Amino acid sequence: MKTFLLLLLLAFSSVSFAEETTPLPSHKIAYPQGWHTWSSIAVSHRTDNNTVRAILGNEIAVNAARSGKHSPWPDGVILAKVVWKAGELSHWPQAIGPKAFVHAEFMFKDSVKYADTYGWGWARWVGEDQTPFEGGMQVCISCHTPVKDNDWVFTEPAWFPAK
Amino acid sequence: MKTFLLLLLLAFSSVSFAEETTPLPSHKIAYPQGWHTWSSIAVSHRTDNNTVRAILGNEIAVNAARSGKHSPWPDGVILAKVVWKAGELSHWPQAIGPKAFVHAEFMFKDSVKYADTYGWGWARWVGEDQTPFEGGMQVCISCHTPVKDNDWVFTEPAWFPAK
Repeated sequence: MKTFLLLLLLAFSSVSFAEETTPLPSHKIAYPQGWHTWSSIAVSHRTDNNTVRAILGNEIAVNAARSGKHSPWPDGVILAKVVWKAGELSHWPQAIGPKAFVHAEFMFKDSVKYADTYGWGWARWVGEDQTPFEGGMQVCISCHTPVKDNDWVFTEPAWFPAK
Repeated sequence: MKTFLLLLLLAFSSVSFAEETTPLPSHKIAYPQGWHTWSSIAVSHRTDNNTVRAILGNEIAVNAARSGKHSPWPDGVILAKVVWKAGELSHWPQAIGPKAFVHAEFMFKDSVKYADTYGWGWARWVGEDQTPFEGGMQVCISCHTPVKDNDWVFTEPAWFPAK
Protein backbone atom coordinates (compact mmCIF):
# COMPACT_ATOMS: atom_id res chain seq x y z
CA MET A 1 0.00 0.00 0.00
CA LYS A 2 2.84 2.35 0.86
CA THR A 3 4.45 1.53 -2.49
CA PHE A 4 1.16 2.19 -4.28
CA LEU A 5 0.78 5.59 -2.60
CA LEU A 6 4.38 6.43 -3.44
CA LEU A 7 3.81 5.54 -7.10
CA LEU A 8 0.61 7.60 -7.13
CA LEU A 9 2.50 10.55 -5.68
CA LEU A 10 5.25 10.19 -8.28
CA ALA A 11 2.68 10.02 -11.08
CA PHE A 12 1.00 13.25 -9.94
CA SER A 13 4.35 14.92 -9.40
CA SER A 14 5.43 14.27 -12.98
CA VAL A 15 2.12 15.57 -14.36
CA SER A 16 2.54 18.69 -12.29
CA PHE A 17 6.15 19.06 -13.43
CA ALA A 18 5.11 18.79 -17.10
CA GLU A 19 2.55 21.54 -16.57
CA GLU A 20 5.06 23.77 -14.84
CA THR A 21 7.52 23.49 -17.71
CA THR A 22 5.16 25.12 -20.22
CA PRO A 23 6.85 28.44 -20.99
CA LEU A 24 5.25 31.60 -19.63
CA PRO A 25 3.49 34.03 -22.02
CA SER A 26 5.44 36.51 -24.14
CA HIS A 27 3.81 39.95 -24.53
CA LYS A 28 0.77 38.41 -22.77
CA ILE A 29 0.42 35.87 -25.58
CA ALA A 30 0.17 32.24 -24.45
CA TYR A 31 2.85 29.82 -25.65
CA PRO A 32 1.42 28.05 -28.73
CA GLN A 33 1.79 24.49 -27.54
CA GLY A 34 2.27 21.89 -30.23
CA TRP A 35 3.99 24.21 -32.71
CA HIS A 36 6.93 21.84 -32.96
CA THR A 37 4.71 19.42 -34.92
CA TRP A 38 3.30 22.03 -37.33
CA SER A 39 3.74 21.68 -41.09
CA SER A 40 6.19 23.70 -43.16
CA ILE A 41 5.56 26.91 -45.07
CA ALA A 42 9.13 27.74 -46.10
CA VAL A 43 12.79 27.66 -45.06
CA SER A 44 15.41 30.38 -45.12
CA HIS A 45 19.11 31.08 -44.63
CA ARG A 46 19.96 34.58 -43.41
CA THR A 47 23.50 35.21 -44.54
CA ASP A 48 23.58 38.57 -42.72
CA ASN A 49 23.28 37.08 -39.24
CA ASN A 50 24.36 33.50 -39.95
CA THR A 51 21.12 31.72 -39.07
CA VAL A 52 18.86 29.19 -40.75
CA ARG A 53 15.11 29.06 -40.24
CA ALA A 54 12.14 26.76 -40.59
CA ILE A 55 8.93 28.68 -41.15
CA LEU A 56 6.02 26.61 -39.84
CA GLY A 57 2.34 27.40 -39.47
CA ASN A 58 -0.83 26.25 -37.76
CA GLU A 59 -3.43 24.57 -39.98
CA ILE A 60 -5.07 27.86 -40.97
CA ALA A 61 -1.69 29.30 -41.96
CA VAL A 62 -0.59 26.24 -43.95
CA ASN A 63 -3.91 26.15 -45.82
CA ALA A 64 -3.64 29.87 -46.61
CA ALA A 65 -0.01 29.53 -47.71
CA ARG A 66 -0.59 26.57 -50.00
CA SER A 67 -3.73 27.97 -51.60
CA GLY A 68 -2.09 31.35 -52.19
CA LYS A 69 -4.64 33.13 -49.98
CA HIS A 70 -2.22 35.11 -47.83
CA SER A 71 -2.54 38.71 -49.05
CA PRO A 72 -3.51 39.44 -46.35
CA TRP A 73 -3.18 36.39 -44.10
CA PRO A 74 -6.59 35.53 -42.58
CA ASP A 75 -7.50 35.83 -38.91
CA GLY A 76 -6.55 32.75 -36.92
CA VAL A 77 -3.19 32.31 -38.66
CA ILE A 78 -0.15 31.63 -36.52
CA LEU A 79 3.25 31.77 -38.22
CA ALA A 80 6.29 30.30 -36.47
CA LYS A 81 9.86 31.13 -37.37
CA VAL A 82 12.25 28.64 -35.78
CA VAL A 83 15.81 29.97 -35.76
CA TRP A 84 19.15 28.18 -35.33
CA LYS A 85 22.72 29.35 -35.75
CA ALA A 86 23.94 28.24 -39.18
CA GLY A 87 26.93 25.99 -39.77
CA GLU A 88 28.44 23.52 -42.21
CA LEU A 89 27.18 19.93 -42.15
CA SER A 90 29.98 17.70 -40.92
CA HIS A 91 29.78 15.30 -43.88
CA TRP A 92 29.05 17.89 -46.58
CA PRO A 93 30.51 21.31 -45.72
CA GLN A 94 28.98 22.93 -48.82
CA ALA A 95 25.62 22.47 -47.08
CA ILE A 96 24.61 24.90 -44.34
CA GLY A 97 22.34 23.50 -41.65
CA PRO A 98 21.07 24.15 -38.11
CA LYS A 99 23.43 24.23 -35.12
CA ALA A 100 22.52 25.81 -31.72
CA PHE A 101 18.87 26.77 -31.26
CA VAL A 102 18.39 30.55 -31.02
CA HIS A 103 14.68 31.17 -30.57
CA ALA A 104 11.19 30.59 -31.94
CA GLU A 105 9.24 33.67 -33.04
CA PHE A 106 5.52 33.84 -33.71
CA MET A 107 3.02 36.13 -35.43
CA PHE A 108 -0.63 35.66 -34.41
CA LYS A 109 -3.14 37.20 -36.86
CA ASP A 110 -6.22 38.78 -35.29
CA SER A 111 -7.26 41.97 -37.03
CA VAL A 112 -9.52 43.03 -34.12
CA LYS A 113 -7.56 41.92 -31.05
CA TYR A 114 -4.26 43.19 -32.43
CA ALA A 115 -5.55 46.21 -34.37
CA ASP A 116 -3.03 48.43 -32.59
CA THR A 117 -0.07 46.33 -33.79
CA TYR A 118 -1.05 46.05 -37.45
CA GLY A 119 -3.32 43.02 -37.02
CA TRP A 120 -0.65 40.79 -35.56
CA GLY A 121 0.31 39.68 -32.08
CA TRP A 122 4.10 39.36 -31.85
CA ALA A 123 5.82 36.92 -29.50
CA ARG A 124 9.13 35.14 -29.06
CA TRP A 125 10.56 32.44 -26.82
CA VAL A 126 14.34 32.43 -26.48
CA GLY A 127 16.85 29.61 -26.12
CA GLU A 128 16.39 25.97 -25.22
CA ASP A 129 14.65 26.97 -21.99
CA GLN A 130 12.15 28.99 -24.08
CA THR A 131 12.37 32.14 -21.99
CA PRO A 132 9.57 34.54 -22.99
CA PHE A 133 10.75 37.70 -24.73
CA GLU A 134 9.32 40.81 -23.08
CA GLY A 135 11.08 43.55 -25.03
CA GLY A 136 7.80 44.83 -26.44
CA MET A 137 6.02 44.19 -29.74
CA GLN A 138 7.51 47.39 -31.19
CA VAL A 139 10.90 45.67 -31.28
CA CYS A 140 9.43 43.02 -33.60
CA ILE A 141 7.44 45.54 -35.65
CA SER A 142 10.48 47.74 -36.14
CA CYS A 143 12.44 44.94 -37.86
CA HIS A 144 9.40 43.99 -39.96
CA THR A 145 8.90 47.52 -41.34
CA PRO A 146 10.49 46.61 -44.73
CA VAL A 147 7.50 44.29 -45.28
CA LYS A 148 4.70 46.55 -44.04
CA ASP A 149 3.16 46.38 -47.52
CA ASN A 150 3.35 42.59 -47.50
CA ASP A 151 1.07 42.21 -44.44
CA TRP A 152 4.25 42.56 -42.32
CA VAL A 153 5.50 39.11 -43.37
CA PHE A 154 8.94 38.37 -44.88
CA THR A 155 8.18 34.72 -45.70
CA GLU A 156 7.44 33.74 -49.28
CA PRO A 157 5.51 30.43 -49.02
CA ALA A 158 7.20 27.52 -50.79
CA TRP A 159 5.43 25.30 -53.31
CA PHE A 160 4.15 22.02 -51.89
CA PRO A 161 1.98 19.39 -53.60
CA ALA A 162 -1.73 19.58 -52.74
CA LYS A 163 -1.67 16.10 -51.19
CA MET B 1 -33.69 13.15 -61.44
CA LYS B 2 -31.44 13.83 -64.39
CA THR B 3 -29.74 16.60 -62.40
CA PHE B 4 -29.24 14.24 -59.49
CA LEU B 5 -27.65 11.60 -61.70
CA LEU B 6 -25.44 14.22 -63.28
CA LEU B 7 -24.28 15.41 -59.86
CA LEU B 8 -23.68 11.81 -58.81
CA LEU B 9 -21.61 11.26 -61.94
CA LEU B 10 -19.62 14.42 -61.31
CA ALA B 11 -18.98 13.39 -57.71
CA PHE B 12 -17.64 9.99 -58.75
CA SER B 13 -15.62 11.54 -61.56
CA SER B 14 -13.83 13.86 -59.19
CA VAL B 15 -13.08 11.02 -56.75
CA SER B 16 -11.70 9.02 -59.63
CA PHE B 17 -9.69 12.02 -60.83
CA ALA B 18 -8.22 12.53 -57.34
CA GLU B 19 -7.14 8.90 -57.24
CA GLU B 20 -5.61 9.15 -60.67
CA THR B 21 -3.52 12.15 -59.67
CA THR B 22 -1.64 10.24 -56.94
CA PRO B 23 1.87 9.93 -58.35
CA LEU B 24 2.97 6.50 -59.52
CA PRO B 25 5.57 4.56 -57.49
CA SER B 26 9.29 5.33 -57.72
CA HIS B 27 11.58 2.27 -57.60
CA LYS B 28 8.41 0.24 -56.81
CA ILE B 29 7.93 2.31 -53.62
CA ALA B 30 4.44 3.80 -53.20
CA TYR B 31 4.16 7.59 -52.99
CA PRO B 32 4.04 8.48 -49.27
CA GLN B 33 0.78 10.40 -49.25
CA GLY B 34 0.45 13.10 -46.63
CA TRP B 35 4.18 13.88 -46.41
CA HIS B 36 3.48 17.56 -47.11
CA THR B 37 1.97 17.83 -43.60
CA TRP B 38 4.86 16.06 -41.81
CA SER B 39 6.81 17.79 -39.07
CA SER B 40 10.31 19.19 -39.47
CA ILE B 41 13.61 17.50 -38.67
CA ALA B 42 16.00 20.09 -40.13
CA VAL B 43 16.58 22.59 -42.93
CA SER B 44 19.55 23.09 -45.21
CA HIS B 45 21.05 25.34 -47.86
CA ARG B 46 23.31 23.63 -50.38
CA THR B 47 25.59 26.32 -51.68
CA ASP B 48 27.18 23.91 -54.17
CA ASN B 49 24.02 23.41 -56.22
CA ASN B 50 22.04 26.49 -55.15
CA THR B 51 19.11 24.75 -53.46
CA VAL B 52 17.36 24.98 -50.09
CA ARG B 53 15.74 22.04 -48.37
CA ALA B 54 13.19 21.18 -45.72
CA ILE B 55 13.90 17.83 -44.12
CA LEU B 56 10.63 16.36 -42.84
CA GLY B 57 9.80 12.99 -41.34
CA ASN B 58 6.93 10.68 -40.53
CA GLU B 59 6.03 10.36 -36.84
CA ILE B 60 8.53 7.54 -36.21
CA ALA B 61 11.30 9.64 -37.78
CA VAL B 62 10.44 12.83 -35.90
CA ASN B 63 10.30 10.95 -32.59
CA ALA B 64 13.67 9.32 -33.31
CA ALA B 65 15.23 12.62 -34.37
CA ARG B 66 14.06 14.57 -31.35
CA SER B 67 14.98 11.91 -28.82
CA GLY B 68 18.42 11.43 -30.36
CA LYS B 69 17.70 7.77 -31.20
CA HIS B 70 18.81 7.82 -34.83
CA SER B 71 22.13 5.95 -34.85
CA PRO B 72 20.88 3.94 -36.62
CA TRP B 73 17.40 5.18 -37.56
CA PRO B 74 14.77 2.59 -36.56
CA ASP B 75 12.66 0.55 -38.97
CA GLY B 76 9.52 2.40 -40.06
CA VAL B 77 11.26 5.74 -40.45
CA ILE B 78 10.57 7.76 -43.57
CA LEU B 79 12.74 10.81 -44.20
CA ALA B 80 11.67 13.42 -46.76
CA LYS B 81 13.99 15.95 -48.32
CA VAL B 82 11.99 18.67 -50.08
CA VAL B 83 14.18 20.64 -52.49
CA TRP B 84 13.67 24.05 -54.10
CA LYS B 85 15.97 26.25 -56.14
CA ALA B 86 17.45 28.89 -53.83
CA GLY B 87 17.04 32.61 -54.32
CA GLU B 88 17.02 35.94 -52.50
CA LEU B 89 13.85 37.01 -50.70
CA SER B 90 12.38 40.00 -52.50
CA HIS B 91 12.14 42.13 -49.34
CA TRP B 92 15.38 40.97 -47.69
CA PRO B 93 17.98 39.89 -50.24
CA GLN B 94 20.44 38.80 -47.54
CA ALA B 95 18.00 35.94 -46.86
CA ILE B 96 18.00 32.93 -49.19
CA GLY B 97 14.68 31.13 -49.53
CA PRO B 98 12.79 28.67 -51.75
CA LYS B 99 11.97 29.46 -55.38
CA ALA B 100 10.98 26.80 -57.99
CA PHE B 101 10.24 23.34 -56.62
CA VAL B 102 12.83 20.76 -57.74
CA HIS B 103 11.83 17.42 -56.23
CA ALA B 104 10.99 15.54 -53.05
CA GLU B 105 13.30 12.68 -52.11
CA PHE B 106 12.58 9.95 -49.58
CA MET B 107 14.44 7.30 -47.59
CA PHE B 108 12.31 4.44 -46.19
CA LYS B 109 14.02 2.45 -43.41
CA ASP B 110 13.32 -1.29 -43.39
CA SER B 111 16.37 -3.33 -42.49
CA VAL B 112 14.81 -6.56 -43.82
CA LYS B 113 12.93 -5.44 -46.92
CA TYR B 114 15.74 -3.19 -48.09
CA ALA B 115 18.69 -5.26 -46.83
CA ASP B 116 20.25 -5.16 -50.31
CA THR B 117 20.30 -1.33 -50.36
CA TYR B 118 21.78 -0.74 -46.90
CA GLY B 119 18.47 -0.91 -45.03
CA TRP B 120 16.85 1.92 -46.94
CA GLY B 121 14.39 2.17 -49.79
CA TRP B 122 15.28 5.18 -51.95
CA ALA B 123 12.69 7.09 -53.95
CA ARG B 124 12.18 10.49 -55.56
CA TRP B 125 9.34 12.39 -57.22
CA VAL B 126 10.41 15.16 -59.57
CA GLY B 127 8.88 18.55 -60.34
CA GLU B 128 5.46 19.97 -59.61
CA ASP B 129 3.84 17.05 -61.46
CA GLN B 130 5.73 14.67 -59.11
CA THR B 131 7.04 12.38 -61.84
CA PRO B 132 8.50 9.23 -60.27
CA PHE B 133 12.27 8.90 -60.60
CA GLU B 134 13.25 5.53 -62.05
CA GLY B 135 17.00 5.94 -62.40
CA GLY B 136 17.67 3.17 -59.91
CA MET B 137 18.43 3.24 -56.18
CA GLN B 138 22.16 3.02 -56.92
CA VAL B 139 22.02 6.60 -58.19
CA CYS B 140 20.81 7.72 -54.75
CA ILE B 141 23.20 5.44 -52.87
CA SER B 142 26.17 6.67 -54.88
CA CYS B 143 25.63 10.29 -53.76
CA HIS B 144 25.07 9.18 -50.15
CA THR B 145 28.36 7.26 -49.95
CA PRO B 146 30.07 10.05 -47.93
CA VAL B 147 27.62 9.26 -45.10
CA LYS B 148 27.72 5.47 -45.24
CA ASP B 149 29.04 5.48 -41.66
CA ASN B 150 26.18 7.77 -40.57
CA ASP B 151 23.45 5.25 -41.52
CA TRP B 152 23.59 6.80 -45.02
CA VAL B 153 21.95 10.04 -43.82
CA PHE B 154 23.36 13.55 -44.34
CA THR B 155 20.78 15.29 -42.12
CA GLU B 156 21.78 16.43 -38.64
CA PRO B 157 18.48 16.76 -36.71
CA ALA B 158 17.81 20.25 -35.38
CA TRP B 159 16.94 20.94 -31.76
CA PHE B 160 13.21 21.36 -31.10
CA PRO B 161 11.45 21.70 -27.75
CA ALA B 162 9.87 18.51 -26.42
CA LYS B 163 6.39 20.04 -26.54
